Amino acid sequence: MKLMNNNLQQYAIGVDIGGTNTKYGIVNHRGDITHSGRMSTSKYETAEAFVDALYAVFSPIIDEVGKENIKGVGIGAPNANYFTGSIEHSPNLNWKGIVPFASMISEQFGLPCSITNDANAAAVGEMMYGAARGMKDFIVITLGTGVGSGIVTGGQLIYGHDGFAGELGHTIIRPGGREHWSTGVKGTLEAYASATGITLTAREMIAESGRESLLQQYPSEAIDSKAVYECAMKGDEVAKEVYRFTGQILGEALANFVMFSSPEAIILFGGVTKAGNLIMDPVREHMEKNLLAVFKNKVALNFSELKEADAAILGASALAWEIRM
Amino acid sequence: MKLMNNNLQQYAIGVDIGGTNTKYGIVNHRGDITHSGRMSTSKYETAEAFVDALYAVFSPIIDEVGKENIKGVGIGAPNANYFTGSIEHSPNLNWKGIVPFASMISEQFGLPCSITNDANAAAVGEMMYGAARGMKDFIVITLGTGVGSGIVTGGQLIYGHDGFAGELGHTIIRPGGREHWSTGVKGTLEAYASATGITLTAREMIAESGRESLLQQYPSEAIDSKAVYECAMKGDEVAKEVYRFTGQILGEALANFVMFSSPEAIILFGGVTKAGNLIMDPVREHMEKNLLAVFKNKVALNFSELKEADAAILGASALAWEIRM
Repeated sequence: MKLMNNNLQQYAIGVDIGGTNTKYGIVNHRGDITHSGRMSTSKYETAEAFVDALYAVFSPIIDEVGKENIKGVGIGAPNANYFTGSIEHSPNLNWKGIVPFASMISEQFGLPCSITNDANAAAVGEMMYGAARGMKDFIVITLGTGVGSGIVTGGQLIYGHDGFAGELGHTIIRPGGREHWSTGVKGTLEAYASATGITLTAREMIAESGRESLLQQYPSEAIDSKAVYECAMKGDEVAKEVYRFTGQILGEALANFVMFSSPEAIILFGGVTKAGNLIMDPVREHMEKNLLAVFKNKVALNFSELKEADAAILGASALAWEIRM
Repeated sequence: MKLMNNNLQQYAIGVDIGGTNTKYGIVNHRGDITHSGRMSTSKYETAEAFVDALYAVFSPIIDEVGKENIKGVGIGAPNANYFTGSIEHSPNLNWKGIVPFASMISEQFGLPCSITNDANAAAVGEMMYGAARGMKDFIVITLGTGVGSGIVTGGQLIYGHDGFAGELGHTIIRPGGREHWSTGVKGTLEAYASATGITLTAREMIAESGRESLLQQYPSEAIDSKAVYECAMKGDEVAKEVYRFTGQILGEALANFVMFSSPEAIILFGGVTKAGNLIMDPVREHMEKNLLAVFKNKVALNFSELKEADAAILGASALAWEIRM
């Protein structure tokens, strides 16, 4: 019988840093999130200011739980490198260049810290507690401010030789197409399938189509992915067309990903998935249509089963359990 | 000290089945190919006829070496499944449907047989004896009649949940573009970057451009990738343009693959690579141009160091050493 130590290091901190918001929690060994919250990411111009603000919200929680009961801090963040502990050249964060994020957190919190790509953290969360339980080959696609991905093959996350594998949002799916607002590369998946991409598609369609739409009640610069969602839910045809267009591009991209790693399932995760079948139906149609015969009707396409915030917090906290001290 | 048995099972048969030709050899434990040859693949309408013909060429070699000295047969073939031993729905072979190839070989040869994707076999060959020695994260792209790929991450070949991972030739790189002659999918890499794709590009360019070219000395249906190569070597601008166009598409596709698995190197392999810098220069330019900053100038892009036939034969034979009896 394995002896569990119930008094020491019962908790791990999990932090999920997105381009817009950061979600955080404290997780016990059974995977229950006992404290959680969220804060802005984008309002902090520097990583230093962000780390200070994160510590300020955690300080009372750490005091309550007792620092000696916390094993460490696990962080999922865009362009975070598991090997080096740095966040490097992230197109979706204000902090440019190479930021030694794990050591900044570790110093401020007085706790060991391990980081990985936010989508990798979500994939680990899905594998441990969500839609990918028991699977060895799957891909998680996060559809939020940006488009991220965590790829698991043979039960292992793909990190690549430098720790940066799995940037599927930056693969080109429309050569010569829409220029990415941050990377400058044309026609990448993120330029279309992210919340930002949906916003741009809707503004373009309204400007060009001449069709009547509930979206016309907004000034162009006020149209965003939330407005598209609300109008589509009210049955607006142009808003639904935005999802069909987005779903086609995402479906074609997923076909490419299946040809790469032949996963058992692809799990879609994040704000954009709220549109449900409006997006899932065209995604499934265009994925299947573009697959080689050998892959057709074999890949499960599912939404995450975890509450939106939970998968990444749980996945990030799983890093902390594994920290070598 | 490890005892080597020098009298028994000193050899393995390695067979590389391509869409047009099949190359084969007998390999000793040190990786020397002691007997080798080639035969047509495409002239055999059925897998049964092909297996008979393969056995006919091997029969005298097996008699010479002694069957008791041969450990088994390792085969690399398009759409071959390592898990099931079948060749399934191959677009580039005459044998359609699901062919239980390993058991057919095993029965005919009276030797155990293991099979994998021909490009996976090439990747194993490069890892053991070629340009990928010592690497744990790399991709081999085979540019022949078709476009194949073998992907290694963390030192392991990616097989996927069903054994079919690594069909990068069938990823879409020009949505709505050229229809694949066999799969019917539009705009896949293979439709452009294979020898067949180069042939089609050259015929289109000659028909549409109106520019003078050495290629005009051929009737359109006689223009093939060999003619393009020969004219380009003589300095023909249209033939060189064919390689620039092909290289751009391949480079963009490689950028996508880097974003997936972040390899240390990509190794290009097969007949199309004979064009040397005519193809490598545009490949490198367009790969780098489309990479996220974090990947730029980090991925080595190399031609195979092995003789064209050897990598796949050696890689396939490596399967035979591992056969459990």
